[in-house]
Amino acid sequence: MSLQPYRSPSTGREVRAVLFDTFGTVVDWRTGVARQAAAFAAEQGRELDAEAFADDWRALYQPAMEAIRTGTREFTTLDTLHRENLDQVLRRHGFDPERLGAETLEELNKSWHRLPPWPDSVAGLAAIRRRYIVGPLSNGNTSLLLDMARSAGLPWDVIIGSDMTRTYKPLPQAYLRTAAFIDLSPGEVMLAAAHNNDLQAAREAGLATAFIARPMEYGPGQTADLAPEGNWDLSASGIPELADLLGA
Amino acid sequence: MSLQPYRSPSTGREVRAVLFDTFGTVVDWRTGVARQAAAFAAEQGRELDAEAFADDWRALYQPAMEAIRTGTREFTTLDTLHRENLDQVLRRHGFDPERLGAETLEELNKSWHRLPPWPDSVAGLAAIRRRYIVGPLSNGNTSLLLDMARSAGLPWDVIIGSDMTRTYKPLPQAYLRTAAFIDLSPGEVMLAAAHNNDLQAAREAGLATAFIARPMEYGPGQTADLAPEGNWDLSASGIPELADLLGA
Repeated sequence: MSLQPYRSPSTGREVRAVLFDTFGTVVDWRTGVARQAAAFAAEQGRELDAEAFADDWRALYQPAMEAIRTGTREFTTLDTLHRENLDQVLRRHGFDPERLGAETLEELNKSWHRLPPWPDSVAGLAAIRRRYIVGPLSNGNTSLLLDMARSAGLPWDVIIGSDMTRTYKPLPQAYLRTAAFIDLSPGEVMLAAAHNNDLQAAREAGLATAFIARPMEYGPGQTADLAPEGNWDLSASGIPELADLLGA
Repeated sequence: MSLQPYRSPSTGREVRAVLFDTFGTVVDWRTGVARQAAAFAAEQGRELDAEAFADDWRALYQPAMEAIRTGTREFTTLDTLHRENLDQVLRRHGFDPERLGAETLEELNKSWHRLPPWPDSVAGLAAIRRRYIVGPLSNGNTSLLLDMARSAGLPWDVIIGSDMTRTYKPLPQAYLRTAAFIDLSPGEVMLAAAHNNDLQAAREAGLATAFIARPMEYGPGQTADLAPEGNWDLSASGIPELADLLGA
């Protein structure tokens, strides 16, 4: 264990906080949503391709945020966007949301609050936390990230939800306002993410960057984000390896 | 251990989160600031009544926030208010802040980030956390509360600083915006505090309330807040006793 914090070659600063993209990087949203959607379908006595349901729901995520990023819609939490998208996804899979109770829909929407961590996440975060501040840097709202942390056992020091920065990645303010809340320069903050476009935006905002490979995020047929596509500061096959690279 | 969460008689709701005033309730600011001020004076080769210095610095806290609460000044973080007040306190104790380096002053100002917990705090919070969301509900800014948590080992689930609600207790929005960030009704949130006026304001905002006795917060001569002065939902001699009363 080295005594100095890791110094980012790209920012020239010692890293003080390592913040993580969550959906896909820390938690396995596809398995988690599919499992809960399958349980929902079983309760309704219906068949469902649960993995396709999870993929379809996730596919509506970026377009829903885009209206907010471009300013055509006021900031709205991810919980609300997920809830709106749920109606569409249910219809596509043969369910009529109008005939389901509000509580059932709300419960299904909370699937995103109860996602399993990747097997290495909790131990890796605990290791990094010994020497660095750790937290999410996610498009999730605070209550979603809080429930996720309690259910998955994620040892965050601090949770800064997108409802606190009131913007969505990859807009620069999402990264910059998060760094400002913890009173660090952007260059003292590292984003760790499984998505090259997120890392690109973080780098443009002045953050240090680490790629974490999650080749099963989209299931066995995944074709994107299998490897780092930029000269990110660090690249690791999981969070414990990132801990090693950071000297934690 | 009962299976039901505690139901507040005053709000009629089951409590989901127990949020704590920090300065005085969870951490011993007087001992912590005095110790760091004494070290500063020793480095300068000077005598200092360190407890009086801590008391004087703390005494400027409420007047500094009042300009913001009344709207005559824009929201400014507690770190900035502490830093402004530090100049005054230094002069009162015979130091010229103009002759001290910016780094020395900044370091002394960070005394508020490194305060010792009361001896029962960490174990009590860990117990409550097993069944309830725990966090601060403090006038401190996020980075201050984050540093405090890391240095004192406070096991918070979530930190919502006053720079996120952009207001100061005892204004109602300080309590209400905090509850909103964690997606709970005010009645599902309990404020635990050593100060009756804080509990009164929390009750008026619709929160559940618990008094924690901290008769040494202001040293051996303390005369206020020795006992509960309202019919708060709960009253305890420390955080572990509060955990017991909550069935945690």
